[in-house]
Amino acid sequence: MQERLWDIISAVRAQAPLVHNITNYVVMNNTANALLAAGASPVMAHAHPEVQDMVSIASALVINIGTLDEYWVESMGLATQQAHALQKPWVLDPVGAGATPYRNQVLEELLTYKPTVIRGNASEIMALVKTSSKTKGVDSTHQSQEALTAGQELSAATGAVVCISGATDLIIHQNQYHSLSNGHPLMAKVTGMGCTASALTGACCAVQPEDPFTATLAAMALMGVTGEVAAEQANGPGTLQLHFLDGLHQLSKEAFLKRVKLGESS
Amino acid sequence: MQERLWDIISAVRAQAPLVHNITNYVVMNNTANALLAAGASPVMAHAHPEVQDMVSIASALVINIGTLDEYWVESMGLATQQAHALQKPWVLDPVGAGATPYRNQVLEELLTYKPTVIRGNASEIMALVKTSSKTKGVDSTHQSQEALTAGQELSAATGAVVCISGATDLIIHQNQYHSLSNGHPLMAKVTGMGCTASALTGACCAVQPEDPFTATLAAMALMGVTGEVAAEQANGPGTLQLHFLDGLHQLSKEAFLKRVKLGESS
Amino acid sequence: MQERLWDIISAVRAQAPLVHNITNYVVMNNTANALLAAGASPVMAHAHPEVQDMVSIASALVINIGTLDEYWVESMGLATQQAHALQKPWVLDPVGAGATPYRNQVLEELLTYKPTVIRGNASEIMALVKTSSKTKGVDSTHQSQEALTAGQELSAATGAVVCISGATDLIIHQNQYHSLSNGHPLMAKVTGMGCTASALTGACCAVQPEDPFTATLAAMALMGVTGEVAAEQANGPGTLQLHFLDGLHQLSKEAFLKRVKLGESS
Repeated sequence: MQERLWDIISAVRAQAPLVHNITNYVVMNNTANALLAAGASPVMAHAHPEVQDMVSIASALVINIGTLDEYWVESMGLATQQAHALQKPWVLDPVGAGATPYRNQVLEELLTYKPTVIRGNASEIMALVKTSSKTKGVDSTHQSQEALTAGQELSAATGAVVCISGATDLIIHQNQYHSLSNGHPLMAKVTGMGCTASALTGACCAVQPEDPFTATLAAMALMGVTGEVAAEQANGPGTLQLHFLDGLHQLSKEAFLKRVKLGESS
Repeated sequence: MQERLWDIISAVRAQAPLVHNITNYVVMNNTANALLAAGASPVMAHAHPEVQDMVSIASALVINIGTLDEYWVESMGLATQQAHALQKPWVLDPVGAGATPYRNQVLEELLTYKPTVIRGNASEIMALVKTSSKTKGVDSTHQSQEALTAGQELSAATGAVVCISGATDLIIHQNQYHSLSNGHPLMAKVTGMGCTASALTGACCAVQPEDPFTATLAAMALMGVTGEVAAEQANGPGTLQLHFLDGLHQLSKEAFLKRVKLGESS
Repeated sequence: MQERLWDIISAVRAQAPLVHNITNYVVMNNTANALLAAGASPVMAHAHPEVQDMVSIASALVINIGTLDEYWVESMGLATQQAHALQKPWVLDPVGAGATPYRNQVLEELLTYKPTVIRGNASEIMALVKTSSKTKGVDSTHQSQEALTAGQELSAATGAVVCISGATDLIIHQNQYHSLSNGHPLMAKVTGMGCTASALTGACCAVQPEDPFTATLAAMALMGVTGEVAAEQANGPGTLQLHFLDGLHQLSKEAFLKRVKLGESS
């Protein structure tokens, strides 16, 4: 499996897929830089008169609702509709799901265009489960079991690969799942690391559209391994960011295979 | 006093208050990273259907008009109105006050919702004095005296704590003021350092809402001390930024108490 | 010639011209930081009620269509109209020209307000030639000759200085041109380096408005020399960014004169 993940990471470098991002203002620069450093080609475009044209020429679409407003929500609707129609992979990053009724309503609409992958943290995924299943969601008190159950429900309800990122990442698709335990706590002190994970997931899906489960696992392994290498070199969240970008550009197959920690799966 | 300032900085780290920012496009990433590095939890949201909900769950609001437009001005109005109604502390950063009639008009409206703190550079504060008092403002030719007088007028007219940042920072509330002389000239070569100061002021007010004067002093002391430590390690404005973020995350009580330079007060 | 280029770079440091940018969300932070590091004073403003006032107080305008939408396109129209009316230099960065019909249409409108300089990569300039000349453009198969011919056509059709950036930069104005061969391939792995080049071109034109050809050459030489110095110190695209900003701030006349590689000209 590790070798397959590396093959996907290598394919991004070799093919430089065009990844179309409709993302939030806070992280646009990070997202573009991470995609470039990983070998992909980023484009950001949200104007209604061109957003569907841009989806048509891209290999994957990434939607992040961090700083949404009415205009951007309409852009996201147009783009996801087009990605769905053209059967291009698209990734949903439900930033702040559950924080406000508006976010929940927007997410409900976006789910109708069938995201290929949904990536969020545990509380965002749990909020989405409530949105998509209209129930109270999960009741388990065991936290990681709770997250797994929520992810499985969301995957069943939407058909999407669900990725729950945290100290341990869970990648779930219907009955199968994989856990990953790379990464470093300092990554949580840099804004947009989750958004970067979603963007890299888009890049991996672009080169492996027929297997988004493995593509998502590859992206999360790339994030986690690169993040932990960077954290070892960093003095804090400022230097972490740099070493992270340098690492995406430089990571070798050897370092990747040696470090990646795949955990339990089914 | 120095010990009290450190207690506020520590409380931000311990409590991780949610700080809601409606700020400009240029600095959103810096702002979020600085808040995270200082231990706070940033959120950016401006959509009319959710902006008041977000204010309701945040502990402080920071408004920065750097790249305003009609939609964002309305967001700012909704948010500050809600903060005022809920008696949550909010910080106004009047970027470019005086540069265009539109900015002045927007600032005049925002002042009606009673900011807790107003933080700007000397010319922005002087422009606001003209806006709020409808007079020609100050006439003194002694520059720092001139700034102090303007800050006192603005504080009297608005009830807000007024912070004038520069080589020497002045923190003013009605009849009391404090000066601070940390910082480094290289900080002026990095965009958004003032905006970061406003965001950190929001974080400090969030944990010390009943004493915004001391909270603002704590935030400015944190900025100045961290900035001068970072400047000693930097080769230019690029590396300064990193070391600044690393420093916010790492600053110790000992280093803070040793470096902080409180000046005259009344 | 090298001495004249350095004089322009020095004049930016000495005069700190106000450069008004209406640019894309991805690069606003980079752009502001690069302008500050080079000694200029950046301002970003796009609100319809103030955009012309801001042009009036600035010394140059930079328009970049990277993340355009209808509101911003109108801002760009108002600003360029004002710059044209006041005979202030303005730089057009036609990001993604040719990618969608909407971009081409917007560019066609912007060209009516006579940019002083147009700076893009080879494919953007070729797309603009098609837009401005309504013909199929160039047919040559020799790539750099093809780019030169396209640039000459575009300059003839618009009256603008045309700058085509790449491994070799071409700066073209009617019958004269200059090539430059500084820079480093790693620069292409950092987002917004082209946008930074356009912003620095604005700063150089601000201090040398009567000779935009030489001003553009100075800006591109500053980019290329600073970029190659930074690349020698960098471990990847993350660290490159920092060293680049530090370098803009620190570059000495000696280092500049020693490194700058002016190529063929006519």
